[in-house]
Amino acid sequence: MEADGPPVELTRVAAEVDTRLRRLFDDELARWTELDPRLAEAIEELALVVNSGGKRLRAAFVYWAWRGRAGESENPQTAGATAAHVTDVGAAFELLQAFALVHDDIMDDSATRRGRPTVHVAQAARLAAEGWKGEPRRFGEGVAILVGDLSHAYADALMAEANPAARRIWDDLRIELSLGQYLDLRSAASGQLDWETARQVSTFKSALYTIVRPLQLGASLAAPASPALLAALEDYGRPLGRAFQLKDDLLGVLGDELQVGKPVGDDLREGKPTELAAIAFERAGGDQLGILAGIGRRDLSAAEVEAIVEVFRTAGAVEEIEARIGDLVAEAVAAIDRLPFCEQAKGALAALADYVAARNS
Amino acid sequence: MEADGPPVELTRVAAEVDTRLRRLFDDELARWTELDPRLAEAIEELALVVNSGGKRLRAAFVYWAWRGRAGESENPQTAGATAAHVTDVGAAFELLQAFALVHDDIMDDSATRRGRPTVHVAQAARLAAEGWKGEPRRFGEGVAILVGDLSHAYADALMAEANPAARRIWDDLRIELSLGQYLDLRSAASGQLDWETARQVSTFKSALYTIVRPLQLGASLAAPASPALLAALEDYGRPLGRAFQLKDDLLGVLGDELQVGKPVGDDLREGKPTELAAIAFERAGGDQLGILAGIGRRDLSAAEVEAIVEVFRTAGAVEEIEARIGDLVAEAVAAIDRLPFCEQAKGALAALADYVAARNS
Repeated sequence: MEADGPPVELTRVAAEVDTRLRRLFDDELARWTELDPRLAEAIEELALVVNSGGKRLRAAFVYWAWRGRAGESENPQTAGATAAHVTDVGAAFELLQAFALVHDDIMDDSATRRGRPTVHVAQAARLAAEGWKGEPRRFGEGVAILVGDLSHAYADALMAEANPAARRIWDDLRIELSLGQYLDLRSAASGQLDWETARQVSTFKSALYTIVRPLQLGASLAAPASPALLAALEDYGRPLGRAFQLKDDLLGVLGDELQVGKPVGDDLREGKPTELAAIAFERAGGDQLGILAGIGRRDLSAAEVEAIVEVFRTAGAVEEIEARIGDLVAEAVAAIDRLPFCEQAKGALAALADYVAARNS
Repeated sequence: MEADGPPVELTRVAAEVDTRLRRLFDDELARWTELDPRLAEAIEELALVVNSGGKRLRAAFVYWAWRGRAGESENPQTAGATAAHVTDVGAAFELLQAFALVHDDIMDDSATRRGRPTVHVAQAARLAAEGWKGEPRRFGEGVAILVGDLSHAYADALMAEANPAARRIWDDLRIELSLGQYLDLRSAASGQLDWETARQVSTFKSALYTIVRPLQLGASLAAPASPALLAALEDYGRPLGRAFQLKDDLLGVLGDELQVGKPVGDDLREGKPTELAAIAFERAGGDQLGILAGIGRRDLSAAEVEAIVEVFRTAGAVEEIEARIGDLVAEAVAAIDRLPFCEQAKGALAALADYVAARNS
């Protein structure tokens, strides 16, 4: 698989969503600045996070599942939900993602995200620079918690027009997101790097939250989707979600730091339970196990990270993960044929599947 | 004003809401335990917070504003929203409050809440007790962030049936809540203990979030409320909200620690911008100003806290705040007459106003 840029089926949706998000921030900044300019600071901080990148992948899955049901019609509005509403929902997913990232970055104490300082780090530095009272860490994390909470509220406000079927999916995916992150945190702390736990976390955070739920929600916007359609979307989304997670894990240790936008090796320092690490533990022997035991040590040097990655390679874990990604994408693409969607939407889902596997950031 | 127990108009609503919350937690614990018992831990932690007390004041304002519009009817269902739906909305406010408290407690590093260790403190201790990896503070705060996020998602799920008018109020009040808390945090850090800032924070966190918005949302559940009705509810809620905040500030320095459920003096250590402190700064002179300058020092001893409280008294700030509470409650009660509500609902709003001013926790 070649590392290609994002397909047009993604970039077109992303452009619509970005326009919507800019309008939201313009409106909100104007509204609150008028009352008290200090209030706008929290919104500006959120706008920085949202505008600093992100693939808008979830918005694309929402759009194409909706478009797929709208069929070959020249006028997708006839499907019962306007294109503007679908863009709102896509933008809601991007705000929900910003909420999750800002909060996760506190939990992981990540220093950078999308190539910029994370909110809690930037705000801690602000307290010191302003010469304000209090502990920089406490202030930085406090502001980041609030910026995340604000993003959660805005995400939800953009869901205002959703019908009850779509809303139920939205409610459940947020609960899955928080519980998945809890399991992630707990596993890293308790050292449970077992395969099953890694799979469970990945199911919540990648398969369901990133792919299956956006698809199911998109397909429900015009009218409630049948159980058969929801299941068919899951047949595509579950394997692709696993492939997405596996690719993420590879990028987390092998990726180009500038493109990935966060320090390579942090996953290892956090002891993040990945399938990659689980395979390495299974296949490693002798000295290799001693090297892997360093996973979860926050003070791992760059050389120690490199040694662990070398064990991942020599134990065959990297190769195994790459083979699995290929198999999973093929499984997802095969499931597309069974969807009652127009050809254009099917083509888009195939392009998105390839992109998920081949991306380099 | 005598410190009385809560009125029946509050306790009856609270009992309904508590039953609803118990059912939610029972259902969710069963659902997630089946998948993985570790997931249920986060929900259990949230249930502990929600079940450990709370006056359910917001739920009562929702109920009585809805009931007020239902008029004298024996069967409130005829008003267009079922009583079960109104209870759901009341429960949603309690979950939103749990979300706000758990996150605020991280920002303020509060050790106890409602007489129990706060979530981030309890979870930090858990990491140490289990002998798990990582920094206890990081883990404790991470779990508390997630428990709060989960509560936010559940709160919203209980709003599923709300009509667009009610939902707009719900969306706005959450944005006001986060921005108000941001201003609070920022003011404490930057030492802006001025009157205007204290009033602005109090407007967001007490007047709007605790009283005006629950009333307006309750009045909108059956059908959108007219601008005149929304304004009339604000005429009652704004002064009562200020009274609520002023009472809170008094309890924060003069209250009985066991009844208030959090250490007395923490507001002073955090440098919380209160109207009480603002008045004291205005009226104090000489040595008194030097004592007040200790506000915002995290290491204030009990004796230093007592000295500051003594300045509050001798400078006349406590007396002034008590007088203002009396005036504000009278202003709120006078506004009740202008509401197009049944006599029963009017009586309930009067009882709730008295309770807000006279409570001792």
